[in-house]
Amino acid sequence: MDRHAAPLGVNKERVAMLSDGVFAIAATLLVLELKVPEAEGGVPLDQALLHVAPALGAYALSFFVIALFWTAYHRTLAMLHEIDRPILYLNVALLFLVSLQPFPTALFGRYSGEFLAVALYAAVMAATGAVLYLIWRRAMSRPELLRVDTKEASARAFALRLALTPAVFALSIPLAWWSPGAAIAAWVLVSLFTLASRMRYH
Amino acid sequence: MDRHAAPLGVNKERVAMLSDGVFAIAATLLVLELKVPEAEGGVPLDQALLHVAPALGAYALSFFVIALFWTAYHRTLAMLHEIDRPILYLNVALLFLVSLQPFPTALFGRYSGEFLAVALYAAVMAATGAVLYLIWRRAMSRPELLRVDTKEASARAFALRLALTPAVFALSIPLAWWSPGAAIAAWVLVSLFTLASRMRYH
Amino acid sequence: MDRHAAPLGVNKERVAMLSDGVFAIAATLLVLELKVPEAEGGVPLDQALLHVAPALGAYALSFFVIALFWTAYHRTLAMLHEIDRPILYLNVALLFLVSLQPFPTALFGRYSGEFLAVALYAAVMAATGAVLYLIWRRAMSRPELLRVDTKEASARAFALRLALTPAVFALSIPLAWWSPGAAIAAWVLVSLFTLASRMRYH
Amino acid sequence: MDRHAAPLGVNKERVAMLSDGVFAIAATLLVLELKVPEAEGGVPLDQALLHVAPALGAYALSFFVIALFWTAYHRTLAMLHEIDRPILYLNVALLFLVSLQPFPTALFGRYSGEFLAVALYAAVMAATGAVLYLIWRRAMSRPELLRVDTKEASARAFALRLALTPAVFALSIPLAWWSPGAAIAAWVLVSLFTLASRMRYH
Repeated sequence: MDRHAAPLGVNKERVAMLSDGVFAIAATLLVLELKVPEAEGGVPLDQALLHVAPALGAYALSFFVIALFWTAYHRTLAMLHEIDRPILYLNVALLFLVSLQPFPTALFGRYSGEFLAVALYAAVMAATGAVLYLIWRRAMSRPELLRVDTKEASARAFALRLALTPAVFALSIPLAWWSPGAAIAAWVLVSLFTLASRMRYH
Repeated sequence: MDRHAAPLGVNKERVAMLSDGVFAIAATLLVLELKVPEAEGGVPLDQALLHVAPALGAYALSFFVIALFWTAYHRTLAMLHEIDRPILYLNVALLFLVSLQPFPTALFGRYSGEFLAVALYAAVMAATGAVLYLIWRRAMSRPELLRVDTKEASARAFALRLALTPAVFALSIPLAWWSPGAAIAAWVLVSLFTLASRMRYH
Repeated sequence: MDRHAAPLGVNKERVAMLSDGVFAIAATLLVLELKVPEAEGGVPLDQALLHVAPALGAYALSFFVIALFWTAYHRTLAMLHEIDRPILYLNVALLFLVSLQPFPTALFGRYSGEFLAVALYAAVMAATGAVLYLIWRRAMSRPELLRVDTKEASARAFALRLALTPAVFALSIPLAWWSPGAAIAAWVLVSLFTLASRMRYH
Repeated sequence: MDRHAAPLGVNKERVAMLSDGVFAIAATLLVLELKVPEAEGGVPLDQALLHVAPALGAYALSFFVIALFWTAYHRTLAMLHEIDRPILYLNVALLFLVSLQPFPTALFGRYSGEFLAVALYAAVMAATGAVLYLIWRRAMSRPELLRVDTKEASARAFALRLALTPAVFALSIPLAWWSPGAAIAAWVLVSLFTLASRMRYH
């Protein structure tokens, strides 16, 4: 920890590691919502597994979205030279939202056809993506926080890509009022598009 | 790991990382107390969510308070050159209290109007803040543990700020006897004040 | 983080640490499936423990298999100089499967005599081993990703050893249709063989 | 990661970090066994808390014992220059036992007066301490694994101290047959003695 870090008391690497820990724990805790059906209830295993299937789908979707958020966060930090206090507090908000994700995931897995569960899930995901976007906007507004080799054009292109995910999740809320299934389809599409665009970009 | 670390067997960075892990896990485990209402019980989702609302509030408050403790701990370690055995044992006590937090949080979320739940929550938070304060007092009493660029005036100011949070939580216990709501308001106020003072300080 | 890492935004050490975190959390969460029998139900402790015994066996098996996967993953990364984007996405798939393991483990502990539970367990383990194998195949196909001192013969031998575990788990699925016990015996044998061959190899 | 680490594929720092993660997660998961009493059951909060008290005691004891194991493990690794494959496999056994601890802790918290629960708790703790002792014996038998400044007298003294905890836990099993309370007292005494001797030693 160099002297420069002392006045702020913020060490980028340590914040990145704590955040990685929260991402890893939140992603792994999702599995606890997959309750094994009780044999005592007399339910045959195949029917019980069918009952668990929506929760398994919600688990897979959330794991994948959290992984996309993590790779975006990872890339954001890779372009930062250091972090300042506003970014530290935005980072705490990000971790709050990431660690909350097992709750809307469980809700969505249990009530996947209901507007309220779908809307809450979309709202938490939209908020998570929005905080990631704000972290990057803050970094762009302070050139001294960025690595010297960051080009403005690629910084703007990255901001646009960061804005896409929360925008789609937010717009899926009114869509879910009309059709929960259409909202879920929009989530899957934006996730696959994000994945594909990242693959092409590199 | 340099030779200097060998006689004590304590490596500051490794203790910091283990502690970060416990902070991250405790903060993330809080979400497990947000039980998704069971559909089988015939409760509509909107009423079930209203039922979960106090637990969600307790979750958000605890996450925020743990994050404030973590940033205070982070800053404490940033000012230390190395740690000695008393600080190691105080650190174990700190981790005990941090990892305990899901229990008073769940209790407070379920019985938020009752004195006993409010008092237990305040007591655990006061104890956590008090141990953080003791770690810093120990460091201040051993100048060889501090970084050479630590000024005495700023060390004293930091001690004062560290003392504020446990003092308010401790004083909120008698206040909760008179009114649980007033105690909770005191917690929120001291948290927001701590956040604001840190923002101004830097 | 050196300049070289910037265009990809992928840092091998950070991915390794996040992955280690997921392995550690998944292995530790397995224990939560060991439900302590309730005293209220009037069941004496010794009978209750007999009831928990299959879940304890499933826990021990899964912990051991996860540990074997982790040491294989650890060794894979030790032979890599850097990782590219396909390996990053294979790594996300690996973490998805690792973090899923508490679910098939719990299922297998509760329904250890049933084909469906045994087959699902074998399928998740086979998929996990297959992704590890694909990570190594990708690394072998890009010599610039490997450390300069990696010999081709040892890379091929390592690929063969990596292929063994998923092959046995996959082949145990039809075997389980005939006899679930034979499938479980095949898992234990391949795990012990893997352990022994690693011990001899070094 | 230097060249020297490559043939074995074992990196001491990375194993230490994974192990720290497992210690941290196991210690933090203990809190999940503190079930918040349900309000619906009509139980007043103060009576419900009395009901939770034994589990809280078991939690505090286990957290403290895990912390003592962690500091012993921490010190062991500080005296090692590198680790070999037998130590890696002993380390996996150690992590298996550490991650298992929430189960005997929950059992002991629920059935604290019964021989079987007390004996199982003591057996897991004795096994954990025994594996730690074996790791150190292995290191002592291979001088090339030790740091050059390790004196043989202090290595022997450390082995003796490492043997004390598992010996007391093992001997407490027959003691528990005669009186569970006496066994628990022996655990608390050895823990406090270990703490005191470490404080004096430094």
